[in-house]
Amino acid sequence: MKIVILGSGNVAYHLAKAFSEKGISLDQIFGRNEKDLKEISDAFDVPYSTKVLKSADFYIVAVSDDYVNEVSKMITAENCLVAHTSGSLPVAVLEGNYRKASFYPLQTFSKSKNLKYSEIPFFVEADNAADLHFLENLAQNISPHVMASDFEKRKYIHLTAVFACNFVNHLYARAKEISDAQNIPFHYFIPLIQETTAKIKEIDPKFAQTGPAIRGDERVLKVHEDLLTDEEHLKIYRTMNDSIKEMYEL
Amino acid sequence: MKIVILGSGNVAYHLAKAFSEKGISLDQIFGRNEKDLKEISDAFDVPYSTKVLKSADFYIVAVSDDYVNEVSKMITAENCLVAHTSGSLPVAVLEGNYRKASFYPLQTFSKSKNLKYSEIPFFVEADNAADLHFLENLAQNISPHVMASDFEKRKYIHLTAVFACNFVNHLYARAKEISDAQNIPFHYFIPLIQETTAKIKEIDPKFAQTGPAIRGDERVLKVHEDLLTDEEHLKIYRTMNDSIKEMYEL
Repeated sequence: MKIVILGSGNVAYHLAKAFSEKGISLDQIFGRNEKDLKEISDAFDVPYSTKVLKSADFYIVAVSDDYVNEVSKMITAENCLVAHTSGSLPVAVLEGNYRKASFYPLQTFSKSKNLKYSEIPFFVEADNAADLHFLENLAQNISPHVMASDFEKRKYIHLTAVFACNFVNHLYARAKEISDAQNIPFHYFIPLIQETTAKIKEIDPKFAQTGPAIRGDERVLKVHEDLLTDEEHLKIYRTMNDSIKEMYEL
Repeated sequence: MKIVILGSGNVAYHLAKAFSEKGISLDQIFGRNEKDLKEISDAFDVPYSTKVLKSADFYIVAVSDDYVNEVSKMITAENCLVAHTSGSLPVAVLEGNYRKASFYPLQTFSKSKNLKYSEIPFFVEADNAADLHFLENLAQNISPHVMASDFEKRKYIHLTAVFACNFVNHLYARAKEISDAQNIPFHYFIPLIQETTAKIKEIDPKFAQTGPAIRGDERVLKVHEDLLTDEEHLKIYRTMNDSIKEMYEL
């Protein structure tokens, strides 16, 4: 089974690393950015090219959403399987006379950060049972958390991740604006943040809720609203508290 | 220096434990709930009482916000210092002819969870320099992160924590509703959640933002809005995306 990765970004890097750690050799890493390709090539002993795409059985298009279609057209082989790694695209975005698939690792990747690959869930999709079986087996080499999921399901996975990660990060950014303006070091909040997030490994977040809204503490809610001079902060404050009150029927 | 803690909840438990680990002996733990008092008493070798409050130099009122005033009235001694542990109350809520203070550990406490006390920031306030110095020294036995902070500053600390913890937990609860409804195991999102939160230890959250809103990916934003049938989910989705667009001037 010859495998080629297209792309040299964070996802390509970590997939190459994860395969390498499990002794699964890649036939090529292909892309435009020679510096990044060379880094992956050197680190995990994979040949690279910016010009000639090798013939392979399985191509992984690990580029950002906007480029998946364009890059997929470079694959002119027909008797092969091609998967993208995006949570928010259908397999039909892949354009070519090959069998189409999705190979979606649910994680946020930065090159500089080590990850436990065995914890990463993989969501896979293919047009036929044999390809699905192949993708499941391949993913299971890296992690036991593998689930078949079509585009409909993938959309909800991505949406859940937007709430639990993208929006959470934005709350951290807004929180830091508040503490920065008062010269309170944001790093003081890190242990509390880590503990809040660690808690949901053990407790359903619905039962771990704390704070003035769930206590029905209108005095504190009023004090906070008076402190918030930024319109966006205030909108978030009210939306989140209203949603907490609605969830617990307060 | 004789020290007494009033209360037997999570904060009282962890303060008693933190003092005990540093060899600072408590003279008494006082409260209503004998079962909880006995547990703390047995674990950290502290006398307890539900009836007679011992005479002491420093009392820590570690009860929930609603009871701080009521419990503070039980302290009839005058030549002593009394502190509460709340982030959202002024020291004036303490009612008695003693010197008043605040001793606020910024952390979320559950009895069952071990914590690294040395990471917890303590915010302290007192009416005079000698008491402030005493509180700073006492807190520094537990953690190097000690900061003097009056009620005005404490309000902002609490507000920041509401954004970075209470609201974050609520996003986890809402995210879980979305994945539960699609039979996607929520534990699949835990590694991504942990990684998102771990990232801000190294990167300013403002520079770690990802997701469809910051990419200006109107196609995905529209897909997600169409998936959201719950009004509260939709309100959160729009408020957070609008706020992300505003922050990055998109």
